[in-house]
Amino acid sequence: MEPIGLAVVGAGYWGPNLVRTAQATPALRLRWLCDLDEERARTVLGPYTTVRATPSYRQVLDDPDVAAVAIATPAATHFELVRAALEAGKHVLVEKPLTPSAAQSAELVDLAARYGLVLMCDHTYCYTPAVRKIRELIHGGEIGDVQFVDSVRINLGLVQPDVDVLWDLAPHDLSILDHVLPADVTVEAVAARGSDPINAGRLCVAHLSVLLSTGVMAHVHVNWLSPTKIRTTVIGGSRRTIVWDDLNPVQRLAVYDRGVDRAPAGTLGQDERHEALVSYRVGDVLVPALPEREALREVMAELADAITQERPPLTGGDAGLRVVALLEAADRSVAEGGALVPVRHVAESDVMKEHA
Amino acid sequence: MEPIGLAVVGAGYWGPNLVRTAQATPALRLRWLCDLDEERARTVLGPYTTVRATPSYRQVLDDPDVAAVAIATPAATHFELVRAALEAGKHVLVEKPLTPSAAQSAELVDLAARYGLVLMCDHTYCYTPAVRKIRELIHGGEIGDVQFVDSVRINLGLVQPDVDVLWDLAPHDLSILDHVLPADVTVEAVAARGSDPINAGRLCVAHLSVLLSTGVMAHVHVNWLSPTKIRTTVIGGSRRTIVWDDLNPVQRLAVYDRGVDRAPAGTLGQDERHEALVSYRVGDVLVPALPEREALREVMAELADAITQERPPLTGGDAGLRVVALLEAADRSVAEGGALVPVRHVAESDVMKEHA
Amino acid sequence: MEPIGLAVVGAGYWGPNLVRTAQATPALRLRWLCDLDEERARTVLGPYTTVRATPSYRQVLDDPDVAAVAIATPAATHFELVRAALEAGKHVLVEKPLTPSAAQSAELVDLAARYGLVLMCDHTYCYTPAVRKIRELIHGGEIGDVQFVDSVRINLGLVQPDVDVLWDLAPHDLSILDHVLPADVTVEAVAARGSDPINAGRLCVAHLSVLLSTGVMAHVHVNWLSPTKIRTTVIGGSRRTIVWDDLNPVQRLAVYDRGVDRAPAGTLGQDERHEALVSYRVGDVLVPALPEREALREVMAELADAITQERPPLTGGDAGLRVVALLEAADRSVAEGGALVPVRHVAESDVMKEHA
Amino acid sequence: MEPIGLAVVGAGYWGPNLVRTAQATPALRLRWLCDLDEERARTVLGPYTTVRATPSYRQVLDDPDVAAVAIATPAATHFELVRAALEAGKHVLVEKPLTPSAAQSAELVDLAARYGLVLMCDHTYCYTPAVRKIRELIHGGEIGDVQFVDSVRINLGLVQPDVDVLWDLAPHDLSILDHVLPADVTVEAVAARGSDPINAGRLCVAHLSVLLSTGVMAHVHVNWLSPTKIRTTVIGGSRRTIVWDDLNPVQRLAVYDRGVDRAPAGTLGQDERHEALVSYRVGDVLVPALPEREALREVMAELADAITQERPPLTGGDAGLRVVALLEAADRSVAEGGALVPVRHVAESDVMKEHA
Repeated sequence: MEPIGLAVVGAGYWGPNLVRTAQATPALRLRWLCDLDEERARTVLGPYTTVRATPSYRQVLDDPDVAAVAIATPAATHFELVRAALEAGKHVLVEKPLTPSAAQSAELVDLAARYGLVLMCDHTYCYTPAVRKIRELIHGGEIGDVQFVDSVRINLGLVQPDVDVLWDLAPHDLSILDHVLPADVTVEAVAARGSDPINAGRLCVAHLSVLLSTGVMAHVHVNWLSPTKIRTTVIGGSRRTIVWDDLNPVQRLAVYDRGVDRAPAGTLGQDERHEALVSYRVGDVLVPALPEREALREVMAELADAITQERPPLTGGDAGLRVVALLEAADRSVAEGGALVPVRHVAESDVMKEHA
Repeated sequence: MEPIGLAVVGAGYWGPNLVRTAQATPALRLRWLCDLDEERARTVLGPYTTVRATPSYRQVLDDPDVAAVAIATPAATHFELVRAALEAGKHVLVEKPLTPSAAQSAELVDLAARYGLVLMCDHTYCYTPAVRKIRELIHGGEIGDVQFVDSVRINLGLVQPDVDVLWDLAPHDLSILDHVLPADVTVEAVAARGSDPINAGRLCVAHLSVLLSTGVMAHVHVNWLSPTKIRTTVIGGSRRTIVWDDLNPVQRLAVYDRGVDRAPAGTLGQDERHEALVSYRVGDVLVPALPEREALREVMAELADAITQERPPLTGGDAGLRVVALLEAADRSVAEGGALVPVRHVAESDVMKEHA
Repeated sequence: MEPIGLAVVGAGYWGPNLVRTAQATPALRLRWLCDLDEERARTVLGPYTTVRATPSYRQVLDDPDVAAVAIATPAATHFELVRAALEAGKHVLVEKPLTPSAAQSAELVDLAARYGLVLMCDHTYCYTPAVRKIRELIHGGEIGDVQFVDSVRINLGLVQPDVDVLWDLAPHDLSILDHVLPADVTVEAVAARGSDPINAGRLCVAHLSVLLSTGVMAHVHVNWLSPTKIRTTVIGGSRRTIVWDDLNPVQRLAVYDRGVDRAPAGTLGQDERHEALVSYRVGDVLVPALPEREALREVMAELADAITQERPPLTGGDAGLRVVALLEAADRSVAEGGALVPVRHVAESDVMKEHA
Repeated sequence: MEPIGLAVVGAGYWGPNLVRTAQATPALRLRWLCDLDEERARTVLGPYTTVRATPSYRQVLDDPDVAAVAIATPAATHFELVRAALEAGKHVLVEKPLTPSAAQSAELVDLAARYGLVLMCDHTYCYTPAVRKIRELIHGGEIGDVQFVDSVRINLGLVQPDVDVLWDLAPHDLSILDHVLPADVTVEAVAARGSDPINAGRLCVAHLSVLLSTGVMAHVHVNWLSPTKIRTTVIGGSRRTIVWDDLNPVQRLAVYDRGVDRAPAGTLGQDERHEALVSYRVGDVLVPALPEREALREVMAELADAITQERPPLTGGDAGLRVVALLEAADRSVAEGGALVPVRHVAESDVMKEHA
């Protein structure tokens, strides 16, 4: 089978990674790297390549050998670029966030569905071996009911002119949440607070409480102000608890054997209750083996497969839209002093139904 | 100098620790262990002791050799027991929380001040080498301005009949916060949310956002539902950031060398900004040597010193009152759906002034 | 049943721990703390005790209420003190090493057997939950054949006038090895080298290679010169590998799921072989739950049980003798420039047989 | 300046890394990838390249545009390939070990010196930020005198037909040792023992004791049989101690503040000495910031710089020869039952002098 012709758009921070992994994917054939700054595109391609650089998006879209584009430009440009690609009949892979607005995102999801094209969001983390395993553990019932989620993502991030920490970092946590939760669990509402202790003019620290349809709270802490990096997610279940420490290569995932038991009311004295607090944990811990695979290569393989098999990708436009809807609601909550703001349900089925 | 006569009240979970450490403190002389269940008191004392057990609190308060009592009974009994002790002219050490209500706590603070007696709260964590070092680093200016605080305390805790996770675990984090923050930083308000995913009838997971007078948010996550224990506090400053992992004996405290710099707006492309995100950290990390001291022995030594030197203890009734006032406000916030609830200022000076 | 009367001899470094744990053991009744420096003994007992201090070992041995003595004096005094106790009809618990010579140790083992008394070595580590679990895993066959052992114990230790690092630290590793290996695996020989880079006049760093009867090498590295502490033992088996990091309270023991497979010779290119090197590990890791028990309390309970049940203790004189024999052989190897020196077999059965 | 024309020889395990990093080095221009299996070479180059594949080493050496070759073929072929390259006037970068024999290695060093060509060994680890920092700390005097070295490198490695664990893994540790030790410290002798518990027909576990000219012992443990990976090197100095854990990305290097102090003989009782053992460490720990650089890119840059500046590279043929001489002596020691075998001194100066 012929490889699928691909163009990468954007030679900035993430573009080079798309270029590299596309070239390592046999089912894809990279045709172009497009950037307004053609020189930068040439530099990214390097002196040994047969791939062409161009400053013209038009040229890319007009190339009949290009079946798909991968867009890694600033978020503000996504809507126009994705729309143009879909209208030119190209499949699209786009960086997060899908667009800066839920309405625009929905329009793109709609457009892709209407044209029968693949619209895929590069929610890279969903393709890591750790997140795949988490999803498998939750969907397979090994965790039991999810009782709480606590996600911390703190970094040293330079303050940006157009994006706050919510839109910069939280898409990672929210797209992971969207990906691993059971299909019948939806996000109902979100409350968010943040602060800007360095007077940067935008949030540099934010806390989100995401209310799930099961009544469970998932909490996300994103933070630009720390010289040390922390990336830990704890998912507590009725049967087991998962601790994911993404910066610990020798124990990225640990599954703790038992959740909490309810002691019959009144049967325990002050003493016994605290005994439990003293023990470090009650059951064995399993550290599952994870394959060493690069997530972005899996993204590329999934893009190719979705196109070939004419099926929705694992992280389609609908997932991107759900994340954007959540971020919009979080923005509103911050503006309203931390109030709980409902999130519009965006199920894959809705989008599908519309075009049935 | 004669050692100070002490009685421990309550032979439940914590009492035996008070008994052991009091006996190891030369400036104290343990006279009694008092518990309604005299047999339990005898068991705690063991077969080798010269210390007397009694079920009668009256007998303890009537003993002229007893100058101080250390109270480790359920919180609901604190008000009556502390008041009786103060009225009997005894100095008091009491477990957290001081009482279940700010009004009652204030009354006890008032009473102790009026009688010129020491009223000390056993905020044990404040006497750990780690917290002492954190306080020293913040007060000494090495951290710079505090920009964020994030504290996580998750445990497997059995659900209790009378206390929720906020009142059980958060006093630790809040008393530490109260202790390490600069003297001129006060708590203005608190917002809290929680959940009860196991239908226990009370909060088992809670998130508090504590608004400081500097505009900074301190966040606390307390959680009873996890088979694994996490006790991590990150304190971000303008000059350095502290990471305290209380379960890591070989690196309990790490001080990261640099906070965040603001890049001049417009000077950075998409590229450069992300470069920073990629690096794990920008400066050296210092892991300060900490002495191996048992915090509760330091509590006992402080109690003896405060009594002897006729001065307020490091963690006096006023600190206990501030923690209780914060917890009360958090309760109100939970009831009001997570709204920001103001916290009444309780400065040591207020109490002092009243009695000047 | 009456508790067993016990005297602790030696109020130095370890004695106070024996005093404390003996008092916490219901099956024992502590009668005396004996030290030439009676004042020191009194200080250790503290102001609340009913236990008597004495400088006279004779007085202790003459007390008919004393059924057993626990000896925590310098190694050079062990032989005389243990012999006198056995001759006085007392059971004995003695600190490591049993004595400084295998001949003397054998004599004591012999004496105890002749008199039908318990002679137990305080190989404390063998009573830790971690070592118990390791023994269980090896004896139960879950590890498969032991293929290698690597033990590292580095500390900051002050140089002592009479003992080198081999005799100070290696008894821990050797007694553990003796305890966890399958019963039919014996030590055949030992090679040792050491160095004294600070011109202390005795070895401060030493490496032992212990040759087992299976042809396997167990390696032990002991070191006094490091400001950081490392206590790691890796036991590789044909089915699983155990990593024990005694300084990591949250993951003291990890059991790795698979050992090594032999690839059929010639079937693998340069490529494939290195692929394996690249992956962090091939199977799941299990972190078994360990109870939080103090090893020394288990030692005390075992002493009482062995006396009551008239059976050899888990770590009897024969185990102490085997460790001493190994250390003697190691001394000889160091003197002979690292040559492999045979170790005399000392099986429990030999000692038993003699007295059959 | 024109980039230096380079050919990579060997498209097996390591070759692709040389290809990738050579292409990322502006001062180099990759001309050929040469492998007897031309198809494999083509696959490594991928479908986008302008670099040529060839099965003919002759063709590479005859190409006047090729100024240097980078050889990543099995060790047994190194001697012939390197000699041919030098005789064709090409500079050479070669994988470790330089050759399987010290005599051959010396011949190549000699040849390169005679022709004035760069002969560089790809001792990759020497170019990692961690090893660079270690070298800097030792050479700058911050560590004081080196008192001990303990290096552990355990892996799951498949047994190979032609190489044992000594020649497979120990070159890493020995090249690092060679690189970081002060210039005036030489290796005097080596003792080695190993075992083959899986009957693989060659050593799978080995322990080396390397005797330095200062009397210090450096110990290296290499091991193929472990499903878990350990890569830790401890370098103890009179002033500070370095702990390098290469698998811990957040704390790869830790510098412990104080070494050991000698207590005046006789001034310490049993007690005090053990007090020291109890504390985890006595001083602060510094975790120096390390840049995130790929070592192999630094190798490539060093190759280009050495050629351009007509100077010996940081890890020249002489370093490779010293490592091979040490491995040969270790082989002899294993054969002689672990005896201490002298190592021939191979100083850079010797080689230089010869050609002065």
